Amino acid sequence: MKNDSEPSHDSLQELQSRIVKFRDDRDWKQFHNPKDLAISLLLEASELLEHFQWKDTEEMKEHILKNNEAVRDELADVMYWVLLMAHDLDIHIGHATHSKLEKNSEKYPVEKARGNHKKYTELIEESVA
Amino acid sequence: MKNDSEPSHDSLQELQSRIVKFRDDRDWKQFHNPKDLAISLLLEASELLEHFQWKDTEEMKEHILKNNEAVRDELADVMYWVLLMAHDLDIHIGHATHSKLEKNSEKYPVEKARGNHKKYTELIEESVA
Amino acid sequence: MKNDSEPSHDSLQELQSRIVKFRDDRDWKQFHNPKDLAISLLLEASELLEHFQWKDTEEMKEHILKNNEAVRDELADVMYWVLLMAHDLDIHIGHATHSKLEKNSEKYPVEKARGNHKKYTELIEESVA
Amino acid sequence: MKNDSEPSHDSLQELQSRIVKFRDDRDWKQFHNPKDLAISLLLEASELLEHFQWKDTEEMKEHILKNNEAVRDELADVMYWVLLMAHDLDIHIGHATHSKLEKNSEKYPVEKARGNHKKYTELIEESVA
Repeated sequence: MKNDSEPSHDSLQELQSRIVKFRDDRDWKQFHNPKDLAISLLLEASELLEHFQWKDTEEMKEHILKNNEAVRDELADVMYWVLLMAHDLDIHIGHATHSKLEKNSEKYPVEKARGNHKKYTELIEESVA
Repeated sequence: MKNDSEPSHDSLQELQSRIVKFRDDRDWKQFHNPKDLAISLLLEASELLEHFQWKDTEEMKEHILKNNEAVRDELADVMYWVLLMAHDLDIHIGHATHSKLEKNSEKYPVEKARGNHKKYTELIEESVA
Repeated sequence: MKNDSEPSHDSLQELQSRIVKFRDDRDWKQFHNPKDLAISLLLEASELLEHFQWKDTEEMKEHILKNNEAVRDELADVMYWVLLMAHDLDIHIGHATHSKLEKNSEKYPVEKARGNHKKYTELIEESVA
Repeated sequence: MKNDSEPSHDSLQELQSRIVKFRDDRDWKQFHNPKDLAISLLLEASELLEHFQWKDTEEMKEHILKNNEAVRDELADVMYWVLLMAHDLDIHIGHATHSKLEKNSEKYPVEKARGNHKKYTELIEESVA
């Protein structure tokens, strides 16, 4: 996907800095607070979900093929708000996600988690309760 | 935040690989499809939003201070689903987000976007409509 | 479902009045504004959705049978916020819904709407766009 | 709001029957299952929330005045899915909501619930946990 003339786009820090710069160039920070940022994130997640509504697995595949750029853009919009929110709340999202994975690894040990669907949904439901 | 013994946690690719490995070690891919992944993303975004509900700016600040780890974990959960979904849909999330920022830069040129709140919400509403 | 000693519970007005009284008896109106009410509605809708996540049609049926009261309660929670919000925004929800059905009947005429799934999702997508 | 030539629009049953008839006239039941219905409900709740995003109390008031019909329609859309879902899951929404109010009255007794904001959010958070 990458060639020599393109940047790698692999750095979370760089992506986040660019997002913050985009916002600050427009002087929009004054309108931002955690509640409205979280609403933005949720609304973008809704728009992403809308792509898959009413569709079975085959129909989703077909839809994604036909609407690849739109789906890509929605996921990017979600990412935008995740990184902006992380910035404003002073959360290092890389550390936070790696550290959450460690917690989840303890919560769902491989030997307990591997297996059938029932086990899966029950595990998830226990973890939610 | 970082010291020499810790990894930088700045690579999107590494974070994503670890997330996919976490899922595949547990053999959970069989239960995953875009609709349910998008639901997961949305449910985590809801849980994040719940932290800020009913609170004004001061109360949010206080809440975030007292519940720093919980908020951090929720944002990490959102990130988990974003990166897993990007993987399954074969979307390079780094490229996608940089490329969406370029589109947004054209859609909201700095000179048009800078300014008062009314302008901001109207711009956003136009873009949604 | 109804017997002579029970009220019919068919009146929107009575249900709404009881909801408003519940809130006002607790002096909670002071904390309510449209944004946080809409967040409440959305969070309850999320909790309802969570019941069906990861499940296929058969698993949903089984889940609903086993968790009938919980599902019922979630839907009631959604209803609570719909009617409270209607009250605070001075919307007659009965009129509003009947009138929206009239609009939708024009938007989706029976002869155009009847038919296969593709037609359905396309109709919906056109209406969203 | 009501005059002699208009129906009262107060009956939940009548409203629900009309909604079910609207759906069945179009032969759309075949595409409906609890998960996608719950997604629809959630997406409409998102669209409602979107009206209040980025706005403070004054701005919301102004927005609602200017966009009264749009807000009304969104709330009606939410109501549509609540009643359709209640029908399909065989839940008597009137009974369900009255009965949930009884539970909530025990959970939040007036003497414990009346009072300051802190008490309110803490009560809510306890109830969520």
